[in-house]
Amino acid sequence: MTDASPRPLERRIADARARFDADIDAWVSTSGAAGPYLVPLSYDWDGVSFVLSTLPGSVTARNIAENGQVRLAFGRTRDVVMVEGTARLIPVAEIEGGVADAYAAHTDWDPREQKEEYAWFRVTPVRIQAWREADELRGRDLMKRGAWLG
Amino acid sequence: MTDASPRPLERRIADARARFDADIDAWVSTSGAAGPYLVPLSYDWDGVSFVLSTLPGSVTARNIAENGQVRLAFGRTRDVVMVEGTARLIPVAEIEGGVADAYAAHTDWDPREQKEEYAWFRVTPVRIQAWREADELRGRDLMKRGAWLG
Repeated sequence: MTDASPRPLERRIADARARFDADIDAWVSTSGAAGPYLVPLSYDWDGVSFVLSTLPGSVTARNIAENGQVRLAFGRTRDVVMVEGTARLIPVAEIEGGVADAYAAHTDWDPREQKEEYAWFRVTPVRIQAWREADELRGRDLMKRGAWLG
Repeated sequence: MTDASPRPLERRIADARARFDADIDAWVSTSGAAGPYLVPLSYDWDGVSFVLSTLPGSVTARNIAENGQVRLAFGRTRDVVMVEGTARLIPVAEIEGGVADAYAAHTDWDPREQKEEYAWFRVTPVRIQAWREADELRGRDLMKRGAWLG
């Protein structure tokens, strides 16, 4: 570890935002009648919300349609950012108005070039937490009820 | 990537088992009335099932009590092993009969030394999948209905 631990709130927020900008994939957890689901997906982050794209028949897409709840994990198990958020389907006009281009630029992968048509979802974070190891569990809240604490 | 991709089934099974042995943490997804939950936890693997330990009041423990369903992810988003399994509480006698010692040896962390009493769960895999990138999505099933395919 290169930093003194535990990190103060401002540092954790800066680290979380830097990770959202730099990373390409997140762990995406959803749930439905069949129980929990978890899969890695590529995302784009515009500074406020996350954009995901997946096949409309996938378990993730069906779970989001069912309850609109997602939990995302970024990073490694001992340097994690957890995001609890609400997900909604993005209308086609919005996708073509820049969302898909930004996603393709960030992920280097364009769902519009796939044979099957993809569904697009916007995840708005409601709660964000970040910690490395046990000594950072205290003070792990970075966002509550959609508002950054820093 | 050091290997030719896509890997054949036997290779993926060997890689998955090697990862279960070598890694210490997994992403643990559960679900309940409040929706999906996801958190990293340390585990032990005895070659057949996974042992997890967490506080009995945690969301993970409460979700497992509710429906006994978990989905675990191991590795990185582009070299992943996904496990769908059933979880049950481990009786105290069994914990003291070697389960906790093995867990502490593997994770280098002993829940019995914590101030609060931990709950122990055994996750029996029902389905296992492994893939790196899109070219490995085909052939990703390693276990179905609790039986290795290789």
